[in-house]
This record gives sequence, structure tokens and C-alpha cells, in this order.
Amino acid sequence: MRVEIWSDIACPWCYIGKARFEKGLAGFAHRGEVEVVHRSFELDPGRAKGDTEQVIDMLAQKYGRTPEEARSMEANVAANAQAEGLGYRAEGRDHGNTFDMHRLLHLAKARGRQDELLSLLYRANFAEERSVFDDTVLAGLAVEAGLDADEARTVLADPGAYADDVRADEREAAELGATAVPFFVFDRRYGISGGQPSEVFGQALEQAWKDRQVTGLIPVGGDAAACDADGSCDVPGADAPGRGA
Amino acid sequence: MRVEIWSDIACPWCYIGKARFEKGLAGFAHRGEVEVVHRSFELDPGRAKGDTEQVIDMLAQKYGRTPEEARSMEANVAANAQAEGLGYRAEGRDHGNTFDMHRLLHLAKARGRQDELLSLLYRANFAEERSVFDDTVLAGLAVEAGLDADEARTVLADPGAYADDVRADEREAAELGATAVPFFVFDRRYGISGGQPSEVFGQALEQAWKDRQVTGLIPVGGDAAACDADGSCDVPGADAPGRGA
Repeated sequence: MRVEIWSDIACPWCYIGKARFEKGLAGFAHRGEVEVVHRSFELDPGRAKGDTEQVIDMLAQKYGRTPEEARSMEANVAANAQAEGLGYRAEGRDHGNTFDMHRLLHLAKARGRQDELLSLLYRANFAEERSVFDDTVLAGLAVEAGLDADEARTVLADPGAYADDVRADEREAAELGATAVPFFVFDRRYGISGGQPSEVFGQALEQAWKDRQVTGLIPVGGDAAACDADGSCDVPGADAPGRGA
Repeated sequence: MRVEIWSDIACPWCYIGKARFEKGLAGFAHRGEVEVVHRSFELDPGRAKGDTEQVIDMLAQKYGRTPEEARSMEANVAANAQAEGLGYRAEGRDHGNTFDMHRLLHLAKARGRQDELLSLLYRANFAEERSVFDDTVLAGLAVEAGLDADEARTVLADPGAYADDVRADEREAAELGATAVPFFVFDRRYGISGGQPSEVFGQALEQAWKDRQVTGLIPVGGDAAACDADGSCDVPGADAPGRGA
């Protein structure tokens, strides 16, 4: 079974939702047969690289709130994070463009280190005193996730590297009707929006698992040469079992 | 879109079918959005590691043919391979147990090098004068595919490493009704058995692509906190847009 998760590193509910999903997954009997793929979604794609501001200021300005109200909004998110055992820095955190992080996550995907890198990005952004809007920090996290330092730096320095992969993920999110993240898709059949309780993820895993047991595949194509489990490699129409004698 | 391909390194129609699938894929407009995953299937799982014999002898014995007839069977497969531009050694090739190669392919999958390694395994087995039933050869191919030499040797030396992943793929093949390989599954919706002509793969890609445009996801779960593309992170039931003020 495959679960795809669209998310952004700057999205606190993605950080919390990932932990809740993982809790649901941990209680799922067939968790060993679930493949998780992380997909790109940017909350603030129009912001220029390097243009960062404090999250509290951004929230206050965006929603016309006082700094106190913005702090209270963040405190609510922090309480939700802490309830999942996650660290959360409610103040002093930067907001900015996450495109380069998504490009780096696609390199990590190609190298089998995507989940490791995403977890480190979330931790650095939400729990630690590190700004992720800095190439040196990102290169360090990439190495921590098991990527090659030179390769990570090369990708960060080339704005076109993996850019198409990020755009393809975002286009696909739109095609699937996702307008907010986190957005979870189970076997391209079920869609779950938001940082739902872990029980919702657990139930969706059960349902998607049950579906795949009963849903047969639609066969395509006529008879064609194949090898079966007793080792025979038949060509249809050949006169006897064999390799097309 | 995702295409899963169950195959065995010892299966000539898998080698040929992979080339035909790739030809179909090359002509597909959305090929950049197709993810290919290789899955394990063993043609001769009961054979002990190290128990190898020449393919011609195995064929002659298995089907009660004369060596000449077995050579003619292989020549037919070779002609099919060559028509796809693939090298094929019709004589002198070994047959044996492929479990360790599948374990190594799962390591390669985890490191983002699966397709590279499978292509090298096929080439070594079918086109070159190398026996793939040899750990030193396998370790060399792993390095050529971009894997770490020590890590590959460690996996080869530990019969339990990635063994569960191989078994899980094989169980899943059985659940999906696959009794022969190559077996192609498109988005868990369409199943294609055998080394079909590339046009069949091309048409199946078109059909599966069309399906996913019209098939909506089934929503699961109630309203939950999420962040949308204008950057707002709402908590349902909160009094105003914000982060759960």
C-alpha cells in the first residue's frame, strides 16, 4: 500500500500531522507493507528566496492581529505539537520560501533518504534554534540525513535542480483537489486533509488495506511470453511448454 | 502514476519486457510523472544458493528435450531480445537461485538505485560472460549501480537482510493473482502479464492516465487543522482565520 503526503516544511499542521499519521501507522498490522512518499507543496511560493521574517510578525500582519494575539495563535499550535511529544518553538521562528528545501527533498528521495531529511527539516524549523532558510544549514541537515555533502551543495546551488519534480508534485496536488496541507492520499483512492487524529489515519489504513484485498486488477493485453513460478518460459502459440521452440 | 513490475533476473521475458515497457514509456507524453518500482519474484525459489547449472542443460532436463531443441528454444528468445536491441547469450549461461539478487535490489531501492542495479543484473546475466550467481560479481555490480561497496557486501553476507521485503513482494504478487512474470501493475488498477509489445504498454499508460484524471478521491475524516496555499493555518471551529486562536 502506498501513502503519499503533500506537505510544506513551513506548515505546523504538517509537522503535527506527520506525527499523528505515524502513530496511526505504528498501530497498523500491515505497516511493513506501507510505503510512504512525501510530496512537495509550498505555502508561500511567491516569496523571494532570502526574504524571511519572523513568524509572529507575519501572522500579525497577515491576519491584522496584535502581536499578543499572534503569540496566542502560535501557543495553541505549540500545545498541539507538545501533545504529540514534539518540540515547538512558538517564538523567534523564521518564515520564508521553501522551494529549495523541496528540491533537496527530491534529491533525498532519489537517494532513499527522504523521510530522514523531512524529519530533520521539521525538527530544525519547529523545535530548534536553527533557521532553515539558509543553504549552509540545509547542507548540514542533508549530510545528517545521509546525503553526500557535495551533491547536496550542488543541488542547492542550481535553482533548476529537481525544480520540475517540485512543480510536478504541486500540479498533482491541484489535480487531486488539494488546496491545503497536510494532504494524505492512500493508494490514490482515499484523501485525508489536515492533521487528523491518529485514529482517523489508523481507520483509513484498515479501509484501504481491505479494499486492495477485494479489488481485482483489470487485465490489459493479449497472451504474451512470460516465465512462470515453475521456471517455464512459454510463448503463447508455441507447440509445447518451452522458450518458444 | 505508478507502475510496479514484478520480475526475476533469471527470466528472459522480464529482460525483454522491461525494454518493451521502456519503449512504450518513452513515447508517453507524461513519462516524467511515471514512477517505476521493481518488485521481487523468483522463478526457482526452491533451488539452494550455490546450486547452479547451465541454462541449456536445465531446459533440456526440465522439458525432456534434446540439447539441440533446448538450444533452439534459447535461440528464439535471443532473436526476440536482439529485436529490442538487447544482447543475449544463448549458450553458456548459468541458472540458479536469485534470492540474494532480490535482497540486493531492495537495498538499491532504499538508496534510489534500483533501476540501475536491475539493468546491470540483466545485462550481466543475459548479455555478458559473467555469472550473477557469485557474491563478488554481485558486489561489483552493486558498486557500478552507485551503491556503497561495504553496505552491499554486508547485505549479501546476511541472509536475513531485506529477506522480508522480498517475501512481501512475492506475497503481494500472489494476492494480485500473478503466477508468471514479468507482471506489470499500473496504479493498482491495470495488470499486464508478459513481455507484451511496446504498443500495449503505451496504450495502458494512456488509459491509466486518463482514469486518474476522472477518478476523484474518497474523502476520509472530518474537518481538521491545515494550512492552505495562501499561508493561513486554520483550526476548524476557531473564531477567525488563524492558527487556532
